[in-house]
Amino acid sequence: MPNPTLADVALRANVSLATVDRVLNDRSGVSDRTRARVLSAATDIGYLETGTATLAPVRLAFVLPEGTNAFVHELARHVTEQSGLMEQVSASVERVTGFDPVALAEKIAALRSEVDGIAMLAVDHPIVREAVRSLVADGKAVTTIGSDVRTVDHLGYIGIDDMQAGRLAGYLIGRLTGAESRREEHPGKVAFFAGSLSYRGHQEREMGFRQILREEFGGLTIAAHREVQDSRALAETEMEAILREHPDIVAVYNAGGGTAGIAAVLERTGRAEDITFIAHDLTDGNTSFLLRGTLDAVIDQNARHEVREALTTLVHAVRGTAYRMVPPRLQIVFRENLPSG
Amino acid sequence: MPNPTLADVALRANVSLATVDRVLNDRSGVSDRTRARVLSAATDIGYLETGTATLAPVRLAFVLPEGTNAFVHELARHVTEQSGLMEQVSASVERVTGFDPVALAEKIAALRSEVDGIAMLAVDHPIVREAVRSLVADGKAVTTIGSDVRTVDHLGYIGIDDMQAGRLAGYLIGRLTGAESRREEHPGKVAFFAGSLSYRGHQEREMGFRQILREEFGGLTIAAHREVQDSRALAETEMEAILREHPDIVAVYNAGGGTAGIAAVLERTGRAEDITFIAHDLTDGNTSFLLRGTLDAVIDQNARHEVREALTTLVHAVRGTAYRMVPPRLQIVFRENLPSG
Repeated sequence: MPNPTLADVALRANVSLATVDRVLNDRSGVSDRTRARVLSAATDIGYLETGTATLAPVRLAFVLPEGTNAFVHELARHVTEQSGLMEQVSASVERVTGFDPVALAEKIAALRSEVDGIAMLAVDHPIVREAVRSLVADGKAVTTIGSDVRTVDHLGYIGIDDMQAGRLAGYLIGRLTGAESRREEHPGKVAFFAGSLSYRGHQEREMGFRQILREEFGGLTIAAHREVQDSRALAETEMEAILREHPDIVAVYNAGGGTAGIAAVLERTGRAEDITFIAHDLTDGNTSFLLRGTLDAVIDQNARHEVREALTTLVHAVRGTAYRMVPPRLQIVFRENLPSG
Repeated sequence: MPNPTLADVALRANVSLATVDRVLNDRSGVSDRTRARVLSAATDIGYLETGTATLAPVRLAFVLPEGTNAFVHELARHVTEQSGLMEQVSASVERVTGFDPVALAEKIAALRSEVDGIAMLAVDHPIVREAVRSLVADGKAVTTIGSDVRTVDHLGYIGIDDMQAGRLAGYLIGRLTGAESRREEHPGKVAFFAGSLSYRGHQEREMGFRQILREEFGGLTIAAHREVQDSRALAETEMEAILREHPDIVAVYNAGGGTAGIAAVLERTGRAEDITFIAHDLTDGNTSFLLRGTLDAVIDQNARHEVREALTTLVHAVRGTAYRMVPPRLQIVFRENLPSG
């Protein structure tokens, strides 16, 4: 048959066109038996070449920042684990210098010829936006994971709503310090830490945090504000300085990494119990600070869920099949609901 | 070939024995092309009958209590939705009278000839345990979902740790009422509601709740204790009585259903703001009580996740393939982290 069509495959396999379409696009609802018949028919009449896999391999890359951020390590681990279980999907983890838009843009441009899709923890910067635009124009599937770039057409952002996360942190601090009844003339002082405000995520957490304090807890005020690049050492130095300058602070919110540095100072100075401390991401270190009572709560996003959604979204986009992403939940972990898995 | 073996299939398809095993047991890691070749070879040499689906259909039933419990409705909805997407799997939802061990035992015994596996929201009672034992002895796959029976061999319990949930509720009430600093000579009074203590889950929530109050918040005491059978009307009547008897209560923990009845009383009497109120399960009703501030927090289990794990566990057990369940997380939902999905 010189130019066999889908209809020829359907005729030969004695199934409907819809079934042929399902099989060739790897959708569910077809028994393995029927799938085999369709694939055989397609090969027999030359619609598929013998030896060609029906599912074209999908090559993906996850571009994540270098460094010791434990949440990023979790993401990387789940990429390897989960993609290993998917048929005809390979996903590599590529590391770039953190907070550096040029390095990120160059990396994703360099990957262009090697992959069908990219997920990246994005720095929100014009250079990165331009690189994403160019990849998308080239027909590549692109999602962001963990931190987004806006005003660029891509498949979407897979992660928590960081504005909501910042509001939540402020709400917890307000409730746990009893700030509803605090008078504005004797405000409670709060310290705020970010990793880098070049991550849209950290910027948004700050916006949300300020917003809810203004709305609901007028008796709380941000007395100290630091950007510590997710560095434990820098966070430690800055926390010491804050305690010297403001020994009367009632709470700390760390929107980024380096939580261990802040915790070390709180424990060393005996302030762990009376200062309410909220941070992000349920890492091993944070788990032990929760158990010791140094951290009051951790705001967590489920790395496993996010990687699964990113992989599924990208694979469906590359194969041209439909998929609706299940948004991750914003979880609060206290000592009393530490998850087992 | 009179008695073809797996090795014959492997030889004919020119693949390894391991690959044949993977295909016939529907495991991943095999391309569709190879899968087709193995299935064709198996049919050609008579190892599989022509026209027989390789994947035997799996028939499952989810046995859930009747009534208006919104969490149960969520479970039922997800069973229909998710099983519809699985190949060769049918799953029905069967309703039985709630809290009734005899009805539950009769229902699962009656399903024996119709299904390969059962998931049920279990009442922990000797009659139910015996019925489960008998089903398992008969080779059926059985899991519990939402509430467990113990000391019976089954595939496992899919749901939250309810003792942990009760501790969490006590922890939240302790922290949100500032009970760490409350003196034991002027204790804060708390009201406790259960659906039915014949659900092991509700019993365990009470145990955990009492445990943490004893451990950490000696200044809180359970002044009222009611079993309201998940009934909104009964909860409403009882909450009115509690407020008459104990106008000075500082918190309410409802471990079961009927939250709307308690909330109605708190709102009507103007006590919604000063009484801390914790309940379970993120239903539509509970969402609006969170938004209005009547409920302070909801302890949630993710019905979608639990149904997916139950379906996957049962299907793998029926097909004889390996699967390790991912335990659900115990989630806390405040007004500020209401999920979108």
